[in-house]
Amino acid sequence: MLSYAQPIRELIEQLERLPGIGPKSAQRLAFHLLAAGPERAEALARAVAQVHARIRRCAECGNWSVEARCPVCLDPARERGTLCVVADAKDLVALERAGEFRGLYHVLDGLLSPVEGIGPGELRIAELLERVEALGASEVILATPPTVEGDATAEFLREVLGELGVRVTRLALGLPVGADLDYADQVTVARALRGRTEMRE
Amino acid sequence: MLSYAQPIRELIEQLERLPGIGPKSAQRLAFHLLAAGPERAEALARAVAQVHARIRRCAECGNWSVEARCPVCLDPARERGTLCVVADAKDLVALERAGEFRGLYHVLDGLLSPVEGIGPGELRIAELLERVEALGASEVILATPPTVEGDATAEFLREVLGELGVRVTRLALGLPVGADLDYADQVTVARALRGRTEMRE
Repeated sequence: MLSYAQPIRELIEQLERLPGIGPKSAQRLAFHLLAAGPERAEALARAVAQVHARIRRCAECGNWSVEARCPVCLDPARERGTLCVVADAKDLVALERAGEFRGLYHVLDGLLSPVEGIGPGELRIAELLERVEALGASEVILATPPTVEGDATAEFLREVLGELGVRVTRLALGLPVGADLDYADQVTVARALRGRTEMRE
Repeated sequence: MLSYAQPIRELIEQLERLPGIGPKSAQRLAFHLLAAGPERAEALARAVAQVHARIRRCAECGNWSVEARCPVCLDPARERGTLCVVADAKDLVALERAGEFRGLYHVLDGLLSPVEGIGPGELRIAELLERVEALGASEVILATPPTVEGDATAEFLREVLGELGVRVTRLALGLPVGADLDYADQVTVARALRGRTEMRE
């Protein structure tokens, strides 16, 4: 029985290892790259191959950066007394898009997960404590996601940060803006109720 | 407002150009490749970059092949009097998996689509007619998909092949094996009824 030629099989195998790409998608992508011609494939290959060579972690916050320090940490206009802790750099960009936060970030590199064997030692928690002290930060905002792992990580950080005497806050839970109450899940509605805020004139 | 570093943006842009990969998926894939480390990224880049260099079209049928002729065309056991016409090499592999067909294939490189400006000149139809004559083929099986484009292409091929006096057939339409009648769409059920076959003892 015929199967794909070896170079196609190798390409499909590599694509299948990407998150959310199943065997069918990998096959479709491989044949798309074949059909699209060598220039397209090479442009993709170059972007994939070079990303690690051209990028590094910000020495301060752990964000991905072309320079030794990322644009946020280099920006003199950012308040150095407030640190926002995120699970990864994607979340940092999501927060920057909101345009609300003017302090600095700290990338944890994941969330605590006993199931996956990720303990405090696997995350950039020691670096966080060092930075909080070095910066003399007055507030740490925990922006870990409202999931089991995100909650556990926030709880752990609240404890260790509490010992430093810094104010520890967490992102509000509630209805997404524009959401239809009818379509929100009951846990979100319950949290929105519990976290209800006083209306001001 | 901060955005991604330039190398990440380039990677996301390249990934977004793949079929079925939206901005969110591209972002997730890019960060996965960053997190997975340089070895993983390089292995993917290599597979993508090399696939065109290591593979070519079979000079006979148009299938992807490491050698000048593909394993099917080189196999002396295949019947040379029956040609099965497929839209692309993916479909050829699907038919080979079924293990039913023992003839040769012909890859069209697409389907007729006036909307997308794909006429007979864009497909490997001239090559098909040449091969039918050169092989003295007795039957051409049209395995284009049962879609608007697949039907139109099959209809067109039936006409031009008919002039060569070769028998032209098409894959049967009907219920997928194991399907629940209740879940089959009404067009499929109608085609299954219309194409009903005599039961033999």
